[in-house]
Amino acid sequence: MLVCALVAYFYQEGDTLALTYSGLIAMGVGGSAWLLTRNVPKDLIKREGFIVVTFVWIVIALFGSLPYILSGTVPRFTDAFFESISGFTTTGASVITDIEGLPHGILLWRSVTHLLGGMGIVVLAVAILPYFGFGGMQLFNAEAGGVTNEQLHPRIAKTAKSLWGIYVSLIGLETIFLVLGGMPMFDALCHSFGTIASGGFSTKNDSMMGYSPYIQYVVIVFMFFAGTNFTLFYFLWKGKFKKVIENKELQLYALVVLAVAVLIAGTLALYDHFPAEPSFRAALFQVVSIVTTTGFVSADYTAWHPYFTYAIFLLMFMGASAGSTSGGIKIMRHHILVKNTMLEFKRLTHPLAVFSLKIRDKAIPKEVVFKVMAFVILYFVIFTAGSFVLTFLGMDMNSAMGAAATTMGGIGPGLGTVGPMNNFLSVPEAGKWVLSLLMLLGRLELFSVLILFSPHFWRNK
Amino acid sequence: MLVCALVAYFYQEGDTLALTYSGLIAMGVGGSAWLLTRNVPKDLIKREGFIVVTFVWIVIALFGSLPYILSGTVPRFTDAFFESISGFTTTGASVITDIEGLPHGILLWRSVTHLLGGMGIVVLAVAILPYFGFGGMQLFNAEAGGVTNEQLHPRIAKTAKSLWGIYVSLIGLETIFLVLGGMPMFDALCHSFGTIASGGFSTKNDSMMGYSPYIQYVVIVFMFFAGTNFTLFYFLWKGKFKKVIENKELQLYALVVLAVAVLIAGTLALYDHFPAEPSFRAALFQVVSIVTTTGFVSADYTAWHPYFTYAIFLLMFMGASAGSTSGGIKIMRHHILVKNTMLEFKRLTHPLAVFSLKIRDKAIPKEVVFKVMAFVILYFVIFTAGSFVLTFLGMDMNSAMGAAATTMGGIGPGLGTVGPMNNFLSVPEAGKWVLSLLMLLGRLELFSVLILFSPHFWRNK
Repeated sequence: MLVCALVAYFYQEGDTLALTYSGLIAMGVGGSAWLLTRNVPKDLIKREGFIVVTFVWIVIALFGSLPYILSGTVPRFTDAFFESISGFTTTGASVITDIEGLPHGILLWRSVTHLLGGMGIVVLAVAILPYFGFGGMQLFNAEAGGVTNEQLHPRIAKTAKSLWGIYVSLIGLETIFLVLGGMPMFDALCHSFGTIASGGFSTKNDSMMGYSPYIQYVVIVFMFFAGTNFTLFYFLWKGKFKKVIENKELQLYALVVLAVAVLIAGTLALYDHFPAEPSFRAALFQVVSIVTTTGFVSADYTAWHPYFTYAIFLLMFMGASAGSTSGGIKIMRHHILVKNTMLEFKRLTHPLAVFSLKIRDKAIPKEVVFKVMAFVILYFVIFTAGSFVLTFLGMDMNSAMGAAATTMGGIGPGLGTVGPMNNFLSVPEAGKWVLSLLMLLGRLELFSVLILFSPHFWRNK
Repeated sequence: MLVCALVAYFYQEGDTLALTYSGLIAMGVGGSAWLLTRNVPKDLIKREGFIVVTFVWIVIALFGSLPYILSGTVPRFTDAFFESISGFTTTGASVITDIEGLPHGILLWRSVTHLLGGMGIVVLAVAILPYFGFGGMQLFNAEAGGVTNEQLHPRIAKTAKSLWGIYVSLIGLETIFLVLGGMPMFDALCHSFGTIASGGFSTKNDSMMGYSPYIQYVVIVFMFFAGTNFTLFYFLWKGKFKKVIENKELQLYALVVLAVAVLIAGTLALYDHFPAEPSFRAALFQVVSIVTTTGFVSADYTAWHPYFTYAIFLLMFMGASAGSTSGGIKIMRHHILVKNTMLEFKRLTHPLAVFSLKIRDKAIPKEVVFKVMAFVILYFVIFTAGSFVLTFLGMDMNSAMGAAATTMGGIGPGLGTVGPMNNFLSVPEAGKWVLSLLMLLGRLELFSVLILFSPHFWRNK
């Protein structure tokens, strides 16, 4: 916040004090809390770990809403909290209509929430959730040989530093490529934060629509990187190319993105008679943006053939790789579900034989398959409950489903009244809290948050 | 068909010959097939059983479409097949716009397809699918002590007769109650076929909208019965009331129906200021009709508050009891999913303990839970694929989702362009075949049909 205040001071657009006060309040409260608890032993039991993981996101989002409120850019608390948690969960859903009218300090803070959220997520996904016994990285461990217990430094702090090195390098690289394409430094930085965190906040009202094909392609490439398992960059850095190329998750991820993009581009070109290159670029941009759960927009997909809208809606449940900054269900879980369904037919035909699910010749324990199924079912139950409450609050069915899917997946734009050409300002007050909760649930892989509502969790062991 | 031809002869509306020819063609082909194969041993291996189960529905639907084509009431083959398979799968989705303009012979045949389809389903669900190793009744077996291996006569033929006794008795009872309410005998019979088979074909253009509250309540009660496990009527007949009242599935079924109906009725009364009794009746009728997968309509639910439409859409995935004529996912599967999700939290808190899922103190093997999860996931995958193809063919997202959900669930009316005030005539040609396939898949619990596409199935053992 204080860094943003410095930038605000440079631009002199009236938001310097708001950012400074916000920073001082956060420092004051945080400092006091530290002083009061610094002598408490730092070893967390698992239960405390769960509580910390959920509350740290809520507390940070609360303090993160201060600059919006104090600067008057988003005066109402509900809206400011929504914008803040949308940033920290790297969702990118916004309630701000005139983004280009925001002062630079606030614009930067908005993108910094992505930056910090993305850093938090990478560490959470790779180092913390597996320790709790869930999260997508378990699958990755079974797949590629494991991070926490093999190549990458085993201790959380060291792992975090390696991952952050990759994270910051990617941001730096993208910024350079964007500046080379003629984008001003400030916007390039903000967009890089939004890309690598798979967030999606832009500094422009029409997101990426107005930028050159070169810039759009750069963003496509880096969105794709942001949806890749970060440990693969570590292997790349160490020269282990074979390990990267043979990674099943990366192959599937690239395949899904390309297949859907080609399908949509083909229809755009052949059916709607769009020129070839813009068709391909628009299709690829939207597909990569949704699959990686970034949420930048380069074209209004809801204005196309009805199946595009539905395809985009379905992709909101896809997600990219485990161990990336992307949200959602993630590709490896889908892969396991598909493989298991195939096996079910085999099991029906040969009821007495035992078939185990294999990915690259490694058997996945049935227990893991069971947990993946339970996760996906819970994901859809929460999606259904969330979207039902939104229709109850008066939203139409499509908009409600789009809003719930896009927030749970950490994407940004939805359908209908919350589609790519609109924002979330019109969502009823209570609906914004529902969506904030969905962002938190989706980002923290459901169980981290929901376990706090389980009576067993609070019972003495 | 020949019985319908007799009725047609009585009414003299020009459909007598069409029905007679259809009957004779069916008899000729069926008789020839019987003559040619009567010396083949009748013992089926399991694989042949699977093939028979799927193809019997397709062949019957093919012959069932003859009266529509020959009478000229539904001249195009695609439409006639759609209407026929919709009848035999007890779905009740129609392509006929002016139902009241149909001759009586055809009207009766349309309802007879429900009658026959319902009889087939009851036997299939209770006696045949469990032998193949899947279907909802396994759950019932685990729950209430089992049918095939306990109270009801163990052999398929005897079981079938008991169930058909219940089935015909319910039809007889409903017909009497409807005639007492002033409905003509012909319509009363057709509506009873449609109710007890949980089909939904009506003899009226506006389904149940024009009938008196008494008749609507009678239909509500018998729709509810049609969604009840038929073996419970057997227990009732034998005086085992306790066994009926304590049945977990029945309790949940009644609870879901009442809870949702009260919620919708409450909103209708308080928010939209409808009078109390009509609100309750309209809500209860629609909810029972959708949950039991019947598909009769007494009010246009898509014209209400947006959350009603969404609630009805979600209920399309509910389904009623196993061992009833209702389709869809069915309540016991949902119950097991909910219970298992709760257990997952327990398992996360105590990772070393073993918790098993219990229904009424009986443990459900983890293998069964696993299969239920695989079934539900496959159900949604097929729903998604089906509705995606429909949007690809040009249907809007809502109508496509409604059409796929309502046909897979065996319900009838959908949303949007295939909503309760419209029919399926406007669906593109290819879309009608997709929907016919979805009806078949949903009705035969997915695996019976899909296993025929599995390479393992055809490989020599």
